[in-house]
Amino acid sequence: MRDLKPIAVKNVSLEKGLLSERMRVIREEVIPYQWRALNDEVPHAEPSHAMENLRIAAGEGEGVHRGFVFQDSDLAKWLEAVGYRLATHPDPELERTADEAIALLARAQEADGYLNSYYTIMKPDQRWTNLRDDHELYCAGHFIEAAVAYYEGTGKRELLDIVCRFVDLIDSVFGLEPGKLKGYPGHQEIELALVRLYSVTADKKHLNLAKFFIDQRGQEPHYFAEEAQKRGQKSPYWYTWGHEYNQSHLPVRQQTTAVGHSVRAMYMYSAMVDLAKAANDPGLLEASKTLWQNVVSKRMYITGGLGSQEFGEGFSADYDLPSDTAYTETCAAIGLVFWAHRLLQVEPRGEYGDVLEVALFNGVLSGISLDGQRFFYVNPLEVVPEIIARRKDHSHVRPTRQSWFGCACCPPNIARLVASIGRYMYSTEGDSLYVHLYGDSNATVEIAGTNLGIRQETEYPFAGQIKFTVTAEQTLDATFYLRIPGWCQGWSVRVNGELLTSPAIEDGYLELSRPWNHGDSVELSLEMPIERVRSNPLVRETMGKVALRRGPLVYCLEETDNGENLSALFLGGEDELMVDFDQDLGLPAIIGYAKRLASRTQDLYTTEEPEIETVQIKAIPYFAWDNRKPGEMLVWLGESF
Amino acid sequence: MRDLKPIAVKNVSLEKGLLSERMRVIREEVIPYQWRALNDEVPHAEPSHAMENLRIAAGEGEGVHRGFVFQDSDLAKWLEAVGYRLATHPDPELERTADEAIALLARAQEADGYLNSYYTIMKPDQRWTNLRDDHELYCAGHFIEAAVAYYEGTGKRELLDIVCRFVDLIDSVFGLEPGKLKGYPGHQEIELALVRLYSVTADKKHLNLAKFFIDQRGQEPHYFAEEAQKRGQKSPYWYTWGHEYNQSHLPVRQQTTAVGHSVRAMYMYSAMVDLAKAANDPGLLEASKTLWQNVVSKRMYITGGLGSQEFGEGFSADYDLPSDTAYTETCAAIGLVFWAHRLLQVEPRGEYGDVLEVALFNGVLSGISLDGQRFFYVNPLEVVPEIIARRKDHSHVRPTRQSWFGCACCPPNIARLVASIGRYMYSTEGDSLYVHLYGDSNATVEIAGTNLGIRQETEYPFAGQIKFTVTAEQTLDATFYLRIPGWCQGWSVRVNGELLTSPAIEDGYLELSRPWNHGDSVELSLEMPIERVRSNPLVRETMGKVALRRGPLVYCLEETDNGENLSALFLGGEDELMVDFDQDLGLPAIIGYAKRLASRTQDLYTTEEPEIETVQIKAIPYFAWDNRKPGEMLVWLGESF
Repeated sequence: MRDLKPIAVKNVSLEKGLLSERMRVIREEVIPYQWRALNDEVPHAEPSHAMENLRIAAGEGEGVHRGFVFQDSDLAKWLEAVGYRLATHPDPELERTADEAIALLARAQEADGYLNSYYTIMKPDQRWTNLRDDHELYCAGHFIEAAVAYYEGTGKRELLDIVCRFVDLIDSVFGLEPGKLKGYPGHQEIELALVRLYSVTADKKHLNLAKFFIDQRGQEPHYFAEEAQKRGQKSPYWYTWGHEYNQSHLPVRQQTTAVGHSVRAMYMYSAMVDLAKAANDPGLLEASKTLWQNVVSKRMYITGGLGSQEFGEGFSADYDLPSDTAYTETCAAIGLVFWAHRLLQVEPRGEYGDVLEVALFNGVLSGISLDGQRFFYVNPLEVVPEIIARRKDHSHVRPTRQSWFGCACCPPNIARLVASIGRYMYSTEGDSLYVHLYGDSNATVEIAGTNLGIRQETEYPFAGQIKFTVTAEQTLDATFYLRIPGWCQGWSVRVNGELLTSPAIEDGYLELSRPWNHGDSVELSLEMPIERVRSNPLVRETMGKVALRRGPLVYCLEETDNGENLSALFLGGEDELMVDFDQDLGLPAIIGYAKRLASRTQDLYTTEEPEIETVQIKAIPYFAWDNRKPGEMLVWLGESF
Repeated sequence: MRDLKPIAVKNVSLEKGLLSERMRVIREEVIPYQWRALNDEVPHAEPSHAMENLRIAAGEGEGVHRGFVFQDSDLAKWLEAVGYRLATHPDPELERTADEAIALLARAQEADGYLNSYYTIMKPDQRWTNLRDDHELYCAGHFIEAAVAYYEGTGKRELLDIVCRFVDLIDSVFGLEPGKLKGYPGHQEIELALVRLYSVTADKKHLNLAKFFIDQRGQEPHYFAEEAQKRGQKSPYWYTWGHEYNQSHLPVRQQTTAVGHSVRAMYMYSAMVDLAKAANDPGLLEASKTLWQNVVSKRMYITGGLGSQEFGEGFSADYDLPSDTAYTETCAAIGLVFWAHRLLQVEPRGEYGDVLEVALFNGVLSGISLDGQRFFYVNPLEVVPEIIARRKDHSHVRPTRQSWFGCACCPPNIARLVASIGRYMYSTEGDSLYVHLYGDSNATVEIAGTNLGIRQETEYPFAGQIKFTVTAEQTLDATFYLRIPGWCQGWSVRVNGELLTSPAIEDGYLELSRPWNHGDSVELSLEMPIERVRSNPLVRETMGKVALRRGPLVYCLEETDNGENLSALFLGGEDELMVDFDQDLGLPAIIGYAKRLASRTQDLYTTEEPEIETVQIKAIPYFAWDNRKPGEMLVWLGESF
C-alpha cells in the first residue's frame, strides 16, 4: 500500500481565485457568523443552544439541554475550522475566543473524562445506552478532529488533552475484553478521528480503538438490536429497512453496495482507508474500493452529490438518480471529498482526484452562497419552486438557501473543508510530489528533507492554464506528478518553456522526473472546451438528456436568465455554445442557442407535434446558482438527436 | 340547462366485447369474491370485518369494531353492485344473500334511524363529533346509493326504507335552523347520493339536504376547525396544508382549482352537477365546469388517472404529472367517470364523453386484473420494481396487483361502476337519443313515449366500426346523436347503407335526424390508427416523450415483451408501428421498431454519444398490464426529433 502524505494546511497559501475567495468567505463571514449562531445571537435564526448547553453541563447555567443530541458537534466543527483558519491566517482575537470555548469544554468535561452536554445534563446515568441514535461517539469524533486541527494550527494542546482523556474513558468502556461494551457508533465519525489522533499521538490505543469500532460493526448478534431490546424500544421510522440505515447490516468487509445514510457511509468508507493504511490492512482497503466502484459508477450525481432520497437521507438503487427529489446533502459531498482524498494517499490514481474535484467544485460549493451567508443542506439538480410548494415528497428541498438550520451539520462542515482546502492540493512520498488539485497558490513542500516552494499561477477551475514556478535553495532530484483530469481530452506541458513531446502518464498523473532548480517552471495547459455530458442510459431520470460541463464545473440554467419552464428546453447537436463572462456573478457563463418546445394547442395531450422555437440560453456554474433572483433551476437539459 | 336522462341499467344488455367481458368478471368473480371478503372468508387476505362489525352493532355478536371507520361502505358498495347485477342478470340465490345482508342492516340500525357500526359499537354517545375524519355521512351516502340501485334492480324497498329513516335523522341533526349542526361530510359522497335518492323519492327534503351540505362547505367560521377545537385535537398529518385536503378551504362556488384528495374532489364536483340540474342552479354548474377545465387541461394523466401524489391521495400543481410516483387511485378515475357522465346529462358535449371513455378504458379498468382476482389501488404510468423496493417515496406503488386491501375502497367501486356500465352508453331527451359510449350491446330506449330497440354490433374499443340496427314497432321521428370521439380524425357514416356526405356535427355529436323504421341501420366508421400522443411541453415529466394510443386505449410497454430498462427506449419519427393481435392476452397489441440507447462505456457520465440500436418493441393496452410476468412497465417513451 502506498503512503502519500498530504501537505499541512499551514503550508499552502491561496491568495486569489475561486478557492481563495471561498476561503476568504469562510474566514470573514462564516466563522464569525457561526460563532454568533452557536451563541444564539443570530436574529431570525433558530437558536443553536450549543454554547448554552455546555455552560449548563459545566454547572454555569441552568435548564435543560436543547437542540439535537449531537448539538455539541457544531462547536467541534467550528473549532476544527478555526484551527485551520488560524494555521493560514493567525488572528489573536479569534484564537482567544476559541481558547475560551475550549476552556468551557474542559469545565464541561466530567471528572472521569466524559464529555457530552446532552447526557451530562439529561441522562447522566444512561451513558452509552443508545449508541444507535444518540451520537455520543459521533460528537467525540468531532471533538477529536477539532483537537488535532487546533493543535496543528496553533500548537496548543488543551483540547488534545481533553479528547485524550475522553478517549481513555471510551477505551475503558468499549472493547472485546470481558465487561466491556462491544458496541460502535450509530453515526460513524470517531473511527476516522481516532486514526487522525493516532497520527499526532502515535498512541497505538487510539488506532486499536478505531479498528475495534470498524471490525465490530455489523457483527452478530447485532449490537443495536440487543441494545434496543434492552431499552424496550421499537425501531424508529428511518430503520424501516433495518440496519442498512447506518451501514451495520453486514460486517464492513462484506459490504459491496453503498446503502443507507450517505454521510455515515462516507465517513465509514473514509475510515476504512485510513485504517487500512495505518494498520496495513489491504483487505479493508479492497472493501472500501469495492464500495467506491459502486458509488462512482452507479450512485453518484454528476455534481458529486450523494443520496437519492430523503428517506434516511440516503442511497436508493443503482442508477436511481432523480434530479428534483435528490437529497444530495452537502455533508455527503464533503464526505466524498474526504474519502477520495484518503484513497489518493494510498493509491494515487487520477480517478480519485477527478471525483474529489467534481464533488468539491459542484456538490460542496453549492452548499454555500457566494456571500457566505446562506446555505443549502439539500442540493437538487432541478428546482421548480411551485412544485416544491405543492408536492409533499419534495418538501425536503428548499428553493433557496437558508440562513441556518436547526440541524446545522452542513454549514460548519463546509467551513472546515474549505478552511483546510490547501491540504487537498499536494501530497508527497519519498522524492515525489503529487499535485491533485489546481488553484492559484503558494505552497511549501518538503521532499526528501528539502523544502521546495511551489507557486501555482492559474485561473483554475475557470481556465486550464497552470504555471508552476519552483523556489529552491538547491537542486533537488524529484518527480512531480501532475493530475491530468479525466474530463480533459487534450493537454500539453512545457518545462522551462520547452514543450514535452511524449511525457509519461501513470494512472492519470503526468510524470516529470528531473533535477529541479530554483526558478524552474512547468506550464500545464488543459484544454477546457464546453462539453455535453450524458449519463449512462440506465439512469432513467436523465435518459435522452444532456448536461453542460466545462473543466470540472457542471453548469445549470436558472429561470432568471432563461425564463420559466426550463424543462421545455432542448439542446440540438447543431446548437452552438460559447463561454461568456458574467459580470454580475463574476464567473464564466455559457451562452448559446437551444430549442424551446411550445404547444400548438391548449390541450394537455395532443397528436400535434410541438412548436419548436430557437432561443438563447445561458448556463452558469452549478455551485453559483441561487445567488440572484429565486426561481427554477435545471442541470439536465433535453437533447434532440 | 339541458336535461338528458341516462338509460336504466336494466335496459342494456352487453353480450360480447370488452365491456361485456369485464361485466362478466364482475358478476362471476368479483361480486362472489367480495362477499367472501366482507365475511372474512378469503384466505391470506387482510380480514374486512365488515359483516362482523354489523352483527356486533345489531347485538348479534360481541367485541369491538375492527377495520376502518368507513368499513360499512364496503358492504354498501357491494350491495349497490349487486343491485345493478340483478337488474341485468337475475340470480335468486345472490338476491337472497343480499336480502339477508339488508335484513342485518335493518337490525343494526338504531331505533332513531342511525346506522353506522363504528359509532354504534365504539362511540354511541359521540355521533357527529368528528365529521372531518370519521365518515358517518360518507357511509350513509353509500348506503343511499346502494338502496337506490337495489330498489331499481329488484323493486325491493327494504333498504330504501332503512336509508330514508336514516336520512330523516340526518335531516333533523343538520341544517341552518337553531340547534342544528352546520356541518358537512369530511369525505363527500352523501351529496350526490341524496340527489339520487330524490330522483326516486321526489322528497324535496332529500334535495334540500344535499344543497345544504354543498352550500355549507367551506363557510366561515370553519366547521372542521371549530369541531377539532371542541375535540381538543391537533390537525392530522394529511391536514398539513389545511382544509384543501377535503375541498373545504373555500365555499365550493369559489373554487377554481382541483386540490386535495382526488376522490373526494370527484364526488363533490359530481354532486355539484347533480344539484345544479335538480335545483336549477346554473352558478353551481359553472363552478363545476371551471374545475373541470382545470382538471382536464392541467391535472389529468393521459390514462384519465387523477392524483399526482401519495400525500393526501391528491392533486399537486398544474402540469405536475409524475409517472412513477403517481397516485392515480382507481377510485379517482371512477369518480372522473361519474363527473363526466353527469356533465353529459346537462350539456351533451363530446369532450365529456372523451374523458369518460379515456378514464373508463384506461385508469379504471387497469384497477382490476383480466381474471378479476387482483386489484390496483394506485395506477402508475411507470413501474420499475427494484426502484419501488428501494425508494420510500415510491412505497405507495405496488409493482403487481394485490388480492385485497385493508382499505378496500377500489375493488367494490370498480364492481359498481362496471356492473352499471350500460347506463353510461345512452341518454334520451325529448325526441333525441344520445349515444355516448360504444360497445356491442342490445338496448331498449324510450323516446317520446315509444320503445325503440338498439342493437350495437362492434368490437369497440378495439375497432372503430359500429353498426346500429333499430327495432321499432312503428316509425318514429327522432334524432340520434352519435359521439365522434375527440381522438378520431377521420370518420364516415352510412344510414341504411348510404354514405352521408355532409352530416351535421354539434358539440362533438353527429346528428342524424329522420323518421326511424324497424330494421334501419347506421354504420359509423371511426378511423382508428396508432397515434403518437405528446403532452403539453409544460408537463416536465413527459417533455420530449411520446405515448402510444389507438382509439381510446392508451398503450404501455412491459418488460416481459421488451426486456428490462424500458426507459432506454426511444421512438423515432421514422419507426414504423402496426397493430398485431396478441394471442396470450386476447387483445390487439402494437408492434414495431424503436431505438434502444446503450452506453459505450462503463462510466456513469460520459461525453461519448450513446450507442443507438434499432429494436423491436411491443405495446399492449394499459389496462391489461401486469397480467403476465411481473416486471417493468412504461407508458411514456422517449422520442427523438
